[in-house]
Amino acid sequence: MLEQLKEEVFQANLELPRHGLIKYTWGNVSAFDKETGYFVIKPSGVSYENMTVDDMVVVDLENKVIEGKLNPSSDTPTHAVLYKAFPEIGGIVHTHSTWATIWAQSGLDCPAMGTTHADTFYGSVPCARFLTQGEIDEGYEHETGNVIVETFNKRGIKPMEVPGVLLHGHGPFTWGKNASSAVMNAVVLDEVCKMNLFTRQLNTYAENLPQRVLDKHYLRKHGANAYYGQ
Amino acid sequence: MLEQLKEEVFQANLELPRHGLIKYTWGNVSAFDKETGYFVIKPSGVSYENMTVDDMVVVDLENKVIEGKLNPSSDTPTHAVLYKAFPEIGGIVHTHSTWATIWAQSGLDCPAMGTTHADTFYGSVPCARFLTQGEIDEGYEHETGNVIVETFNKRGIKPMEVPGVLLHGHGPFTWGKNASSAVMNAVVLDEVCKMNLFTRQLNTYAENLPQRVLDKHYLRKHGANAYYGQ
Amino acid sequence: MLEQLKEEVFQANLELPRHGLIKYTWGNVSAFDKETGYFVIKPSGVSYENMTVDDMVVVDLENKVIEGKLNPSSDTPTHAVLYKAFPEIGGIVHTHSTWATIWAQSGLDCPAMGTTHADTFYGSVPCARFLTQGEIDEGYEHETGNVIVETFNKRGIKPMEVPGVLLHGHGPFTWGKNASSAVMNAVVLDEVCKMNLFTRQLNTYAENLPQRVLDKHYLRKHGANAYYGQ
Amino acid sequence: MLEQLKEEVFQANLELPRHGLIKYTWGNVSAFDKETGYFVIKPSGVSYENMTVDDMVVVDLENKVIEGKLNPSSDTPTHAVLYKAFPEIGGIVHTHSTWATIWAQSGLDCPAMGTTHADTFYGSVPCARFLTQGEIDEGYEHETGNVIVETFNKRGIKPMEVPGVLLHGHGPFTWGKNASSAVMNAVVLDEVCKMNLFTRQLNTYAENLPQRVLDKHYLRKHGANAYYGQ
Repeated sequence: MLEQLKEEVFQANLELPRHGLIKYTWGNVSAFDKETGYFVIKPSGVSYENMTVDDMVVVDLENKVIEGKLNPSSDTPTHAVLYKAFPEIGGIVHTHSTWATIWAQSGLDCPAMGTTHADTFYGSVPCARFLTQGEIDEGYEHETGNVIVETFNKRGIKPMEVPGVLLHGHGPFTWGKNASSAVMNAVVLDEVCKMNLFTRQLNTYAENLPQRVLDKHYLRKHGANAYYGQ
Repeated sequence: MLEQLKEEVFQANLELPRHGLIKYTWGNVSAFDKETGYFVIKPSGVSYENMTVDDMVVVDLENKVIEGKLNPSSDTPTHAVLYKAFPEIGGIVHTHSTWATIWAQSGLDCPAMGTTHADTFYGSVPCARFLTQGEIDEGYEHETGNVIVETFNKRGIKPMEVPGVLLHGHGPFTWGKNASSAVMNAVVLDEVCKMNLFTRQLNTYAENLPQRVLDKHYLRKHGANAYYGQ
Repeated sequence: MLEQLKEEVFQANLELPRHGLIKYTWGNVSAFDKETGYFVIKPSGVSYENMTVDDMVVVDLENKVIEGKLNPSSDTPTHAVLYKAFPEIGGIVHTHSTWATIWAQSGLDCPAMGTTHADTFYGSVPCARFLTQGEIDEGYEHETGNVIVETFNKRGIKPMEVPGVLLHGHGPFTWGKNASSAVMNAVVLDEVCKMNLFTRQLNTYAENLPQRVLDKHYLRKHGANAYYGQ
Repeated sequence: MLEQLKEEVFQANLELPRHGLIKYTWGNVSAFDKETGYFVIKPSGVSYENMTVDDMVVVDLENKVIEGKLNPSSDTPTHAVLYKAFPEIGGIVHTHSTWATIWAQSGLDCPAMGTTHADTFYGSVPCARFLTQGEIDEGYEHETGNVIVETFNKRGIKPMEVPGVLLHGHGPFTWGKNASSAVMNAVVLDEVCKMNLFTRQLNTYAENLPQRVLDKHYLRKHGANAYYGQ
């Protein structure tokens, strides 16, 4: 079942090492099927070199395996919470990519300091708080999803305008309309995290991108009046 | 038409990912044909892997498509302004290359701190100001070109002596006598931006290259008395 | 003899340049055979391109060559001390990988600042002290092993919970249940050393990972209640 | 003539881009033939992709081309001065490799902070001063050689114990018993320049390698009592 989606998820997973975003088995990609309400996700701890499309696991939104002989990613419950809370999204990526993880470890939001950021993220990428002991005991991966949703709700951020988050002390999650765009957003986030770190080092007083330039760049690529591309 | 120039522009575009200057569809190269007054430019938002030479778009200096089935780069009006204002140049490159973008985000000119810089750029690479709201409304990409020209005119910088600029909060443009040398200048600019950032970190008191060494290195490669190469 | 172990050690050595952890002949991997009490190690100063599986050297725990026509790694006595002192370990790796060596040169322990670290190392990776003149004269490589063991004993660190160490002014040693997992730990250590350096630069006040998150991540991958993987 | 030396110089030149030490035509390698008193060097401004072994140029110590249809490297007079002043050396490399150039631009000696350094360089790699206007007018490349020799003589540094130098505002020269070992020294110098820069950033108080460890590591690889390798 969902053979085409499995192929998309498989290919999107392979994009992660190709873009230098992961080492070994770190990271995972999933994609959601609106018709069945199931999603397809990478199996847990399987290396990217040996993985085949048939290893992809089909799961429902209660984390029950629908099809697949392997255990799904240990981060599956985080994906499930995000698909339930953010119905516009069709794909999710988790990595420990170097520069986004550095920002996550620093506990800071990654601000919009340039148009590379503005072309994809309409404002700061927020850093979500650590989980409490209670939340960890309750179910670490599930509560991680809840803390992401809490972060976006509390701050009034729209998940399709800022398609990513940094988890304090952990690393980034990104998402998009499908698996492939979620991967692209993971690439962009890592790159702007690198750029912004060194921008601050080069000029302590570097200002964020003015709102007018942020608006211009985001809106020429997204929304009704976009004119970038074909 | 302009089949050879299309091939040059196509090849020069492919040089960008090969040199690690771009990810995905970011960046574009164009080249100018003096006879017809047209220029050839990368299509907008097309990936480098799938692009063919026939996808190159021929445009006139008023940004009208002369030949090509795809939309030209959204940055086309910036290229047009530069070809009009700087008649010596034959090729233009725009990227979001990491280290040049970091300097652009910092809002600082990149000074000549070494001979790697002096071999190509005869002095600081200037950082051009943000556009005003009025300029953005007027036509963002066209006015971007105007701000570059304003920067060079106001400071009395000769565009063939300093073949590049940093756009505040955005990234670099470089140019040259043709597409290939514009790409080379993009590579050099990114590298010296990296070197200069870390030079300042290593030694806060590091001085710029003395004028006599800047002269020597620039002039042994450029101008009437150059003796570098074959 | 020990043909399979030789193949494992050979392959694990080749992993080092593939992961960007070494240049030229720097670095070495060994693996221990519990039955014979011998270990297999890379020959000294042989380049990775020309090395074959037959060049691997079999050594006993007194550093005597049992089989092999080449000299074993000059670091062989360090490996021998570790196999004797830490009976759980089956493989050892030494590199001069860039970021772990930077921490080693700084003389600082590498703290657990994120879950990338916590998934492999259950706490700080300690930095072992310089050898005294007396220890160097006594036998540099043998005493290097003793200083590592002293570091773990004095601080009460369990070698299988923190499978690596930084040698002040030198570089990292890592280990694991076999050669391949020792290599993986070398990769992880270099990556977290890179992340932690820049985390501190980005936010001087960045805190270490809370104990509860360190526990959660380490224990979901290791020990009786682990649930990561297949 | 000197066909074998040409092949060695050609191969050593190709090592430079393979090790990521150069871009485009930057950098050059030469090797000296004791019998004839000639040396073989890369032609000026020729790209590494198109270069063939027959493009290598044979030059005498007065910089006269003995054989070859192309102009030799513009840095040829610097090489000639070094071969005359340092009779033990058989190969020379010049690059603008990123991290060594950063130290050169900073105007600082690169100190021995670790054993990676000590395995190759027996103490700090010195930074030679800028040339005066008079020296530039006299003959830039020739006087560059003289300033290197002056640096080693004034400080009493032995060129085979510290086989490299940083030229203020320019980049590194390294040398060795032949072209291939000069390239290896260029690789090591760039790597230790990177490590030392970040070591200082990580720990402002990081001390240099104690003399006893510097002695031990340098002497286990070099000199009468060396025991590293086969």
